[in-house]
Amino acid sequence: MPDATALLARARAGDSRATARLVSLVEDAAPELRQVMHATAAYGGHAHVVGLTGAPGVGKSTLTAALVGRYRDKGLRVGVLAVDPTSPFSGGALLGDRVRMQAHATDDQVFIRSMATRGHLGGLAWSTPQALRILDAVGFDVVLVETVGVGQAEVEVAGLADCAIVVVAPGLGDSIQAAKAGILEIADIFAVNKSDRPGAQEVVRDLRTMLAMAGDDRRNAAAAEDRSQHWKPRIVSTVASTGDGIADLAAAIDSHATFLDSSGQRDVRRRARAREEISAIAVAELRRRVGGLPGESRLEELAARVTAGELDPYAAADELIGG
Amino acid sequence: MPDATALLARARAGDSRATARLVSLVEDAAPELRQVMHATAAYGGHAHVVGLTGAPGVGKSTLTAALVGRYRDKGLRVGVLAVDPTSPFSGGALLGDRVRMQAHATDDQVFIRSMATRGHLGGLAWSTPQALRILDAVGFDVVLVETVGVGQAEVEVAGLADCAIVVVAPGLGDSIQAAKAGILEIADIFAVNKSDRPGAQEVVRDLRTMLAMAGDDRRNAAAAEDRSQHWKPRIVSTVASTGDGIADLAAAIDSHATFLDSSGQRDVRRRARAREEISAIAVAELRRRVGGLPGESRLEELAARVTAGELDPYAAADELIGG
Repeated sequence: MPDATALLARARAGDSRATARLVSLVEDAAPELRQVMHATAAYGGHAHVVGLTGAPGVGKSTLTAALVGRYRDKGLRVGVLAVDPTSPFSGGALLGDRVRMQAHATDDQVFIRSMATRGHLGGLAWSTPQALRILDAVGFDVVLVETVGVGQAEVEVAGLADCAIVVVAPGLGDSIQAAKAGILEIADIFAVNKSDRPGAQEVVRDLRTMLAMAGDDRRNAAAAEDRSQHWKPRIVSTVASTGDGIADLAAAIDSHATFLDSSGQRDVRRRARAREEISAIAVAELRRRVGGLPGESRLEELAARVTAGELDPYAAADELIGG
Repeated sequence: MPDATALLARARAGDSRATARLVSLVEDAAPELRQVMHATAAYGGHAHVVGLTGAPGVGKSTLTAALVGRYRDKGLRVGVLAVDPTSPFSGGALLGDRVRMQAHATDDQVFIRSMATRGHLGGLAWSTPQALRILDAVGFDVVLVETVGVGQAEVEVAGLADCAIVVVAPGLGDSIQAAKAGILEIADIFAVNKSDRPGAQEVVRDLRTMLAMAGDDRRNAAAAEDRSQHWKPRIVSTVASTGDGIADLAAAIDSHATFLDSSGQRDVRRRARAREEISAIAVAELRRRVGGLPGESRLEELAARVTAGELDPYAAADELIGG
């Protein structure tokens, strides 16, 4: 392959295949990645990163496609990263979702990529910040990160964005479910999608109640004394398939961006993202040191002894890492 | 607190509060845990661990409650662990779900516990195997693990069980969504719940198609040559709220248990669980060494330099761990 600097230069010049190769290096945890990340260091800090998360079926992909259209109308260069947990079988399903992105597929100012994380290393927490760093360095103005699935890992990934949008929809179990999995804490904006369906008003009302209950006890709580430091999560009703409410959603994202800049919170979030990124890389490296090939067979042997009741797992872990 | 051995002895004698305290030690990552895990080593390997996972609203809790009733009718001692991702606000919602468990709340042969994982250490992958080890050592015949949320971490947790049940329901987005997040690979049994609702037959048909497509390319693939080593996932239709299909589901769980014993796969799974457990403890310990108090401030400083573009994250990770 060409050297990292040349590949990055091509990607920055608008070559989508070069961008795709850079993201593949993250998926593959390729050795060249270290060199790429070194090359990106000088170019970061431009992209506005917007995360979208929510249960299957709420319409995240349609909403993402609608936002892409909105940003393209403004002439912005847009990257879309759909983060998909490990599954050899989900490729088809994901591609199905991506059909909604077809409208943008031939637009060379839009880069769309489903990124699998092959379960190695630190999973989403390891790969997502690095992929975001690459798209930022490539020069996208806005990067939308869609996390497929709702769970601890997916919510944490959405929480790495500059702006985290939690997408909910009526009729998918109680809206109270939205409060699960730590979603309430990370949401800067709630998009109540499919809001033309019965029950949408109820969802909005429930979200309002939950937000009122949660009050200042959120991640901005430390800054809550100073109201200028505090962001009150917005609730926006949308019908992504018709475009209704997309302007409102985009406006809420803009307001939040203005808040991030005026409050200094943008830097706080970016440092938090860098912290998670460094920490995930460090832990993966430590894990690699533990779980190298000799470590693997050692682990197998220790697991057998733990299963047989000869050893407890803490003692086994000590033996593994030489505690 | 009493010493670990005494607490475990009380739990083994049927004292639910002692059991609850042991599980709390896992939630709190308490220092005493090491001693408890040492004490449990001698008592493990009895419980049959059944994992249930699925999207919000499919009726996992109702199904779990129905299975508890079934096992109690057989005179078995049952533990239920509802694994809930970090959320200070989800307490209420989860307790709401648990209302369906009320029938069993006064039965001293049933232990029901929602376990939060406070985001520290390795999350679900760290805490769940240890909580299972404790419930096993306490003497439960069956332990049902319900994971709330659908995502990478939750699916991995369900995959740690002796038997993994994926619960789906009609009307919650395409059933194809079930194929996401690696669910197909880990499912030993699919429970199509709410099967009295429109679309249930379609869900069953879609699952059959997906299973046929996936074929032998599953986690049992290595053993597929020898049919006795291979388990073909079952699809069972249930209506948990009325009890319809629960006998079929219990029969499928029993068949799978028989398969595990006759094929030697039970040991394979238990060693896999122990491997994950040891590895999560080892990585948490390594992470603790990296992220101790001096490490935290060092990490903050490195994150600031990465955000400023002065350093790339790999170089920062090297500085952190002294690579």
